[in-house]
Amino acid sequence: MITLPCVILVEPQLAENVGMAARAMMNCGLAELRLVNPREDHLSAKAVAASSNAEEILYQAKVFSSTEEAVGDLGWVAATTARHRDQTKSVLSAETAAADAALKIQSGISCGLMFGPERTGLNNRDICLADAIINIPLNPKHCSLNLSQAVLLVGYEFYKTQADMGGRQFVTNNTTPADKSLVLKFCAYLENLLDDCGNFRVGEKREKMVINLRNIFTRNQLTEQEVNTLYGVINHLIKPKS
Amino acid sequence: MITLPCVILVEPQLAENVGMAARAMMNCGLAELRLVNPREDHLSAKAVAASSNAEEILYQAKVFSSTEEAVGDLGWVAATTARHRDQTKSVLSAETAAADAALKIQSGISCGLMFGPERTGLNNRDICLADAIINIPLNPKHCSLNLSQAVLLVGYEFYKTQADMGGRQFVTNNTTPADKSLVLKFCAYLENLLDDCGNFRVGEKREKMVINLRNIFTRNQLTEQEVNTLYGVINHLIKPKS
Repeated sequence: MITLPCVILVEPQLAENVGMAARAMMNCGLAELRLVNPREDHLSAKAVAASSNAEEILYQAKVFSSTEEAVGDLGWVAATTARHRDQTKSVLSAETAAADAALKIQSGISCGLMFGPERTGLNNRDICLADAIINIPLNPKHCSLNLSQAVLLVGYEFYKTQADMGGRQFVTNNTTPADKSLVLKFCAYLENLLDDCGNFRVGEKREKMVINLRNIFTRNQLTEQEVNTLYGVINHLIKPKS
Repeated sequence: MITLPCVILVEPQLAENVGMAARAMMNCGLAELRLVNPREDHLSAKAVAASSNAEEILYQAKVFSSTEEAVGDLGWVAATTARHRDQTKSVLSAETAAADAALKIQSGISCGLMFGPERTGLNNRDICLADAIINIPLNPKHCSLNLSQAVLLVGYEFYKTQADMGGRQFVTNNTTPADKSLVLKFCAYLENLLDDCGNFRVGEKREKMVINLRNIFTRNQLTEQEVNTLYGVINHLIKPKS
């Protein structure tokens, strides 16, 4: 059962870049690396060091002597290139390509993400093997990416399709979020103190101040512990100096 | 008028990483870099070389002696950290943080994206200055990122909020997509030829073959030029050998 796209690096020049690409793959939960005619040894010490604990991916990488062979058993391949080519082809953002790959994989189709040599990028003969071109949306005036960064961005988009962590969480650790009554009780306590101080006397102004204070203390999702901290602060402040 | 978030690197250790972060910023259309107590000279030859033509960002970077000063004029700050901290705080995915920053900026609020030192990440005193934590969704078993890669991923998400390139395009260059009639005419031509060859004789099988062929030639959005190419191919094939 195929569950992840493989990464195909066509004629990578530097072993270090292959290692860094492996690291980026591991960051994104990808595992299978295919190399077409790498110029340097992808198992060299430099490559392994650059992989930063992702050397398993390097050891298991398969080496091919042509791109045709490297994609032979795949059902869907997307090629990363910054330039549009003179080929009639779908051009997908990295996000859309990742979504497409995830769908294909769900249908049991093996997918590959293809990246070209550092200097020149993929040539037309490689690109014509791909079902689609991936165009990573970046500043058009400065879109040159390191090979491993291209792998990282596309892999990251794929990772996001698999592991929806939820865009927004609120972390309270071991404390309990305070419910409104607790917050309002604190606000009332503060309002009473301010009344006693002689503030708050004028009706309309008092109302405004109450609303301001309540906004301040409701906007930041206080925890019970934090409400207690606030009581402590206030009580310290009003304590007569000894 | 603020239009982009600034990037704040707190105590970056290596000048090279600052240069690479500048490159990643430029990739993502970001411009303003703030450095809190960088250990090395961010204008060194190494930093400039690593920035790969983004040295302007380095030259214009502002250096601060504390994180408090670096964020002083900002209205909203998000801190990147791989670990959740013991702080009650919103935790946003990079995508959600980018969307939030874009919204804040629309409201005229200056935003900052904060990144910690390479080895240790941001400490708790830095994080408590932030409105939210950015948690980049990555393989939890291998989520350590190079500083510039963290800047790249968060910057990329921000770039996507600004420049929606459309997820899916179909590039035909200077050729015209073939309309259905042209494709069907070609299919009919082919069907007739196959009839003449003596294939296609049995009614039900013929129907199946017609549908298969039409599916093959409609699924790939042919251009007019490509239809002509197909005619050429067929005509070559049926030409009697001289």
